[in-house]
Amino acid sequence: MQTFESFSKQLDLQTGVLEPVECVIQRRLSDMRNIYIDEEARERIEREEGDRLIYEVFVTKLPEKEGHLSYGTTIIYPGCVGEEFHITKGHFHKLRNRAEVYIGISGEGCLIMQSEDGSFRSLKMKRGTVAYVPPNWAHRTGNIGNEPFSFFAIWPGDAGHDYGAIERSSFAKVLVVRGGQAVLIDNPKYAQDK
Amino acid sequence: MQTFESFSKQLDLQTGVLEPVECVIQRRLSDMRNIYIDEEARERIEREEGDRLIYEVFVTKLPEKEGHLSYGTTIIYPGCVGEEFHITKGHFHKLRNRAEVYIGISGEGCLIMQSEDGSFRSLKMKRGTVAYVPPNWAHRTGNIGNEPFSFFAIWPGDAGHDYGAIERSSFAKVLVVRGGQAVLIDNPKYAQDK
Repeated sequence: MQTFESFSKQLDLQTGVLEPVECVIQRRLSDMRNIYIDEEARERIEREEGDRLIYEVFVTKLPEKEGHLSYGTTIIYPGCVGEEFHITKGHFHKLRNRAEVYIGISGEGCLIMQSEDGSFRSLKMKRGTVAYVPPNWAHRTGNIGNEPFSFFAIWPGDAGHDYGAIERSSFAKVLVVRGGQAVLIDNPKYAQDK
Repeated sequence: MQTFESFSKQLDLQTGVLEPVECVIQRRLSDMRNIYIDEEARERIEREEGDRLIYEVFVTKLPEKEGHLSYGTTIIYPGCVGEEFHITKGHFHKLRNRAEVYIGISGEGCLIMQSEDGSFRSLKMKRGTVAYVPPNWAHRTGNIGNEPFSFFAIWPGDAGHDYGAIERSSFAKVLVVRGGQAVLIDNPKYAQDK
């Protein structure tokens, strides 16, 4: 039998940084074309302020196989694109019926989820929140606070990522700031595409 | 399709306590007969000091099914039975090829692992240590410090627990205190049973 060796890393329980750093995926404004509802605002910020870092993911390379687990930390920097909070792209798992567990490390966030039949759910997250993304739900997270929102995530090794399906339909609701508060409003792009 | 609802809990990142508390499994000295190398010491402590709490597990009830994940916190209280540190029973997963991820929350511990062919590994754990228990390894954890050692664990929902196999063979090494230090020594019970 092929043996996979145990190992350990160090998670900073204040910031979410995972060391030793193996691989960091950075998503900048230029990686997020047509992801936010206000594409004009995105273009304007990129032109006037430069290619802002929206979020980064500290990934640990593990076998993408049945029985293994994968894990990593996501740090979403505070800010908005137009009135919409910085948010991740969002994805289904390629194997749809794979769950995911999130642990909030710092800041304030919101996890939004959507099933293939269009059902929608959201959960507020802060330091210590353990959120369960059940099998069959697409998921994305936004930073609704003023400091970096970081969380540690664990998912089955064979889950895989499917960004395409939810990018085409988008999520039914988006996280925006209204009167200084984070609120979920209907996503005009979602209505449009249906 | 049957939908499982998302939910969140709160993990105390200082103590490991998970709230709301759903189910706490407590393992006392009387639950640990023949688990430690010095069974006489275990009996003597139980007789003279009472039924000491060794560790407890805060469990979250989730479907024990493919694609789901399960999680919980284990808190091992400091102390020894004879010269052996407080340690969990240890188990294989019923589905052998299921991994597990541990995150150290407080205190100092040691994770020990053993494969079915008798290979042995260990990893020290402290606050923030993320330890990977690969598929096919039995695992147990001991408290080698002076305060409660707590860690958060995540495993595949369909993994299951098999305590019997490793209880019969035991682990090849045990964690004992020698000159105030934690050391791994050969397990006399393991040699005996082979």
